[in-house]
Amino acid sequence: MSLRRTYMPAEHALANTFGDLMPVAHLRSGDVLSTYTEDFFGGAVQSVDDLPSRACALPNLNPVTGPFFVEDAEPGDTLAVHFISVVPARSVGVSSTFPHFGALTSTARTATVQPSLEERVWLHEIDVGGGVLRFRARDSDFTVHLPLDPMHSTVGVAPAGHEARGTMTCGPHGGRLGSDELRAGTTLYLGVNVHGAMLSLGDGRARGKRCEVFGVSVAVAMHTSIGIEVIKRVATPWPRIESDESILSVGCARRTEDAFRIGQHDLVGWTSELTGLGTLDVHELITQAGTVAVGTVRGPDCTILVRLDKKLLGDAAAYAGAHRRLRQLSPPTTVGASC
Amino acid sequence: MSLRRTYMPAEHALANTFGDLMPVAHLRSGDVLSTYTEDFFGGAVQSVDDLPSRACALPNLNPVTGPFFVEDAEPGDTLAVHFISVVPARSVGVSSTFPHFGALTSTARTATVQPSLEERVWLHEIDVGGGVLRFRARDSDFTVHLPLDPMHSTVGVAPAGHEARGTMTCGPHGGRLGSDELRAGTTLYLGVNVHGAMLSLGDGRARGKRCEVFGVSVAVAMHTSIGIEVIKRVATPWPRIESDESILSVGCARRTEDAFRIGQHDLVGWTSELTGLGTLDVHELITQAGTVAVGTVRGPDCTILVRLDKKLLGDAAAYAGAHRRLRQLSPPTTVGASC
Amino acid sequence: MSLRRTYMPAEHALANTFGDLMPVAHLRSGDVLSTYTEDFFGGAVQSVDDLPSRACALPNLNPVTGPFFVEDAEPGDTLAVHFISVVPARSVGVSSTFPHFGALTSTARTATVQPSLEERVWLHEIDVGGGVLRFRARDSDFTVHLPLDPMHSTVGVAPAGHEARGTMTCGPHGGRLGSDELRAGTTLYLGVNVHGAMLSLGDGRARGKRCEVFGVSVAVAMHTSIGIEVIKRVATPWPRIESDESILSVGCARRTEDAFRIGQHDLVGWTSELTGLGTLDVHELITQAGTVAVGTVRGPDCTILVRLDKKLLGDAAAYAGAHRRLRQLSPPTTVGASC
Amino acid sequence: MSLRRTYMPAEHALANTFGDLMPVAHLRSGDVLSTYTEDFFGGAVQSVDDLPSRACALPNLNPVTGPFFVEDAEPGDTLAVHFISVVPARSVGVSSTFPHFGALTSTARTATVQPSLEERVWLHEIDVGGGVLRFRARDSDFTVHLPLDPMHSTVGVAPAGHEARGTMTCGPHGGRLGSDELRAGTTLYLGVNVHGAMLSLGDGRARGKRCEVFGVSVAVAMHTSIGIEVIKRVATPWPRIESDESILSVGCARRTEDAFRIGQHDLVGWTSELTGLGTLDVHELITQAGTVAVGTVRGPDCTILVRLDKKLLGDAAAYAGAHRRLRQLSPPTTVGASC
Repeated sequence: MSLRRTYMPAEHALANTFGDLMPVAHLRSGDVLSTYTEDFFGGAVQSVDDLPSRACALPNLNPVTGPFFVEDAEPGDTLAVHFISVVPARSVGVSSTFPHFGALTSTARTATVQPSLEERVWLHEIDVGGGVLRFRARDSDFTVHLPLDPMHSTVGVAPAGHEARGTMTCGPHGGRLGSDELRAGTTLYLGVNVHGAMLSLGDGRARGKRCEVFGVSVAVAMHTSIGIEVIKRVATPWPRIESDESILSVGCARRTEDAFRIGQHDLVGWTSELTGLGTLDVHELITQAGTVAVGTVRGPDCTILVRLDKKLLGDAAAYAGAHRRLRQLSPPTTVGASC
Repeated sequence: MSLRRTYMPAEHALANTFGDLMPVAHLRSGDVLSTYTEDFFGGAVQSVDDLPSRACALPNLNPVTGPFFVEDAEPGDTLAVHFISVVPARSVGVSSTFPHFGALTSTARTATVQPSLEERVWLHEIDVGGGVLRFRARDSDFTVHLPLDPMHSTVGVAPAGHEARGTMTCGPHGGRLGSDELRAGTTLYLGVNVHGAMLSLGDGRARGKRCEVFGVSVAVAMHTSIGIEVIKRVATPWPRIESDESILSVGCARRTEDAFRIGQHDLVGWTSELTGLGTLDVHELITQAGTVAVGTVRGPDCTILVRLDKKLLGDAAAYAGAHRRLRQLSPPTTVGASC
Repeated sequence: MSLRRTYMPAEHALANTFGDLMPVAHLRSGDVLSTYTEDFFGGAVQSVDDLPSRACALPNLNPVTGPFFVEDAEPGDTLAVHFISVVPARSVGVSSTFPHFGALTSTARTATVQPSLEERVWLHEIDVGGGVLRFRARDSDFTVHLPLDPMHSTVGVAPAGHEARGTMTCGPHGGRLGSDELRAGTTLYLGVNVHGAMLSLGDGRARGKRCEVFGVSVAVAMHTSIGIEVIKRVATPWPRIESDESILSVGCARRTEDAFRIGQHDLVGWTSELTGLGTLDVHELITQAGTVAVGTVRGPDCTILVRLDKKLLGDAAAYAGAHRRLRQLSPPTTVGASC
Repeated sequence: MSLRRTYMPAEHALANTFGDLMPVAHLRSGDVLSTYTEDFFGGAVQSVDDLPSRACALPNLNPVTGPFFVEDAEPGDTLAVHFISVVPARSVGVSSTFPHFGALTSTARTATVQPSLEERVWLHEIDVGGGVLRFRARDSDFTVHLPLDPMHSTVGVAPAGHEARGTMTCGPHGGRLGSDELRAGTTLYLGVNVHGAMLSLGDGRARGKRCEVFGVSVAVAMHTSIGIEVIKRVATPWPRIESDESILSVGCARRTEDAFRIGQHDLVGWTSELTGLGTLDVHELITQAGTVAVGTVRGPDCTILVRLDKKLLGDAAAYAGAHRRLRQLSPPTTVGASC
């Protein structure tokens, strides 16, 4: 029997890796979980003078809530994580540059001998009721209203091979997907690498990151409800996402070309399985009817999202209809049993 | 006085480079040109048995029509090329893989010791009246109708520095932009590098290339009308595109990260000029309100397109309103004076 | 008081990650350790028919011996690891290709749709007394004698940020350095990230890998003696190596350009500290008098080694003369106390 | 009959592209040419205050002498260029950084929003008789004597496909090889792409560039003698170099990984032809006995040099012994007939 569960992390109970951590709670396939995620800065940036390099202890950036042990999830299975609701928990979203972080600046890896980019914080007002973000410039009084589009940027399970990876990275296990897709109504599929899967999530954003190129944009704590399902004996090599309209594969790699290849390669395989079409025919179909988006190029890893309209799949249902089933779940109206 | 001109290339008058060629005709700022472009294969692939590696002489792939000498265009100016109409000239679009060409195969540059990917040709029926492409698989009888969306993939001027570049490459001078934007109703801005600009165009596609990963997709000869305008003393460092809804910068480079950086960097500078906002504020705005698309990762060059909604620019008009002016041009209903 | 210690791993006591493991033994600054490392294949490839993809459980490739807890090593210190002797423990070195591993083939990250490269094993005879490797081709009876040059390819400590990294990767913590430098007589400097440092080593090769491009070359188990020293309150951002003749910085990154930048950047900073010369002057000096070697480009990470002749440093001694001190250590002639 | 010829370029007769230029003189297979090359800066930097961005017209950097039309050289042939003598023509070598040029700074392609690196010039004294370069720092009075090792960095022929490429780029046609190999006594092999080959050379350096990471190091005008030979009906896909001791393949590409792959792939093919060994066996042999050097990573293109000792080739002679024949040529003692 599935349950509605609630987990509120204590202040210092957040995680900074995927893998090698004890679970904070147990879930079962079919459960609905309501939880809270802290923002990218661990809540430490509250004014434009709280520069992250001083306010945040650097290895502890991007804290996630979890890990959740999912019963019956075993290596070789797939964990479906459906986002039922994602609601900002604060009225301000925080953006910032960092001294050596971003695509348009020197970094620890794009190591140059130039001085680093200026560190700067923006605070943008979030109006959940009105569904808008009030963007406010720093050098002038320019403001503009942009639609809210709350989502999570970092969701993952424990990696394979006994690795533990920081929450700033991504890979086959998920992690910092940098996608603007993980909003209410979508389902993320992740391959399970360890007994219990060990799901964690965080890094809420007030708007899907359209082309984040430096630092972090409109980070905000979130009240989030997810539904989960374990799909037994179906492997998932790279993160995949399903919405009502489309399926997409997420290529994650340090090099953008690699991320592109991985995303394309994975969507070709997935579509070929779903439709029975041959590999080259599917490639040709995706070339003409697919789309490619850039999740992030900022580093340390890049993500490329390759998408196909579900209308082209005919009657085929990915993962035996998991998305459709999970889509029926409603957000919890009252707080359920503590897990 | 602006004129309506027509240029039909003779069979062997097509070009395979940008730069170092004598002009085929002269145009003036304000002119409308109606012309014809051959397909990517030079028209040599007419059945699924015409494998491109045999049917086409390889250095002569991707022929373009031109170059057109544009009077009064000088280094430091910008040439605006507005697409008035782009109409497929044949009823079949040709796709193919190549032995060593594409993102998901070994190439001359991603040199591996594996056997190459199978070479294969697809022919898809084009119904200009109905506005559809009839996609047809090769391994099965799968077919699907996709909307037609005719555009050009290769448009450029002579490069700087006395270079001549093959039509398979792209750079600040344009070239193989691999974008799905150069359709009727959009304006391309290119920096002028040599006296007369020397504009060429070709590589028509029946559908905007959404995520071409190998070979070439639905190449087709085109009947195309363009309007041009020379914008004096305004430099354009990388190709830019304007539609009724948005502006976008095209980063072109061999490495996707470089292309991403270039596109971001250029759009930041452009938006900053148009709005008067500071560099970091514009970055933050583009991060939240811009979008990034992948033009091509297939090689030899990659393109990344970074786009911003024109509503965010307020009253600012790019290039002193060139797009709005050129948008008024109507396609020639009768063939004008030969140029 | 420093001690001579011996640690022989039990058959199943090998590690496959750096980080998140309990120590197998304790060492002190000044100790000499004699130990044994298994080969890259875990000893499972013993004939040309033992294809690694069948003979080895894939996440368990490249086992290392350790981790060793080093007393008094704290985050912010440097651990100097001096190789006193490195002697092949078997008379055969094993090379192989893998289905999706190497620089000249499709891999999980350079994902193409081609068939993979043939998997093949070579066995080359090792003559420790004669100091030669008898290279033997597979397709013909071609043989050639090459000088033995035993070294370790994988040496590291626990990573920062609570991460655990597989032994196939490398980074600031060391790991799969893919260098041909870690032979008897050289000293490796690694920054300490966790209490006790947690040193591990393995991946012995009968010859320094000059330009390994696929699979693994002449892997062999080793009898190895090292001397260690903790250098307090001196940080080391990336792995560094010192020999009698030169100092060198190792850039490790997924992208070769990044690895190159890191290696250059680090050697510039190091040389500037040692000589008091300004950053740009040091760059100019390294440009003219330094050399660059490629450790590996095969993946998942790349390493670039940037080297400078110690004669150019004048009287400056790196790490307060640690290399000179450690160089005095002689290999243990009799087996010391078990640790 | 082969001749000794001399060509001295007039001041404004230097070229800035490979391809699309009229020849300055004609040569025949077997000829010895004595000529002069200007330095990278076109001779315009003569003091530390002559900053290149002001002193040099940017598209005209890196001028080359030529092109020389080589009689009987046709597409599909190989041109062997043997360096008989390379002697600095001035007593000062010029190094500099550039505002946006180098591996450790933002560039036009690694486009960041940071301020650029300081532009700085170094002048190092060249003592041809003593065979030394007197390195002199700018921030202090540090000096050091380094051995002279004069060579050319830029040598090429007209590219294929009717392209013309600036002298800052490299590719299958040669160009800015960034190698420290093109010194007296070595032979460069270049595939011929156009009738007459159209050979040009320049970019002399007082010392082989060991790991140039920014700007240009010890550029100097040269008096150079070369001997040439046309090897009919033997194609050369990428630049190759032969010395008395080794053969090497030069991979040139915008991405270092690509350059690495190209160099490896080419040397494998070449070695396989010379020895009759199978592809995988040659890979294994080069892995163990080859070496890899980095030519340049600075951009716009990168070069990787993969080398094999000629002792491993047995009796096989590359290009039918061209290097040995050309090695017999002595430098012209008196100036020969003007060509």
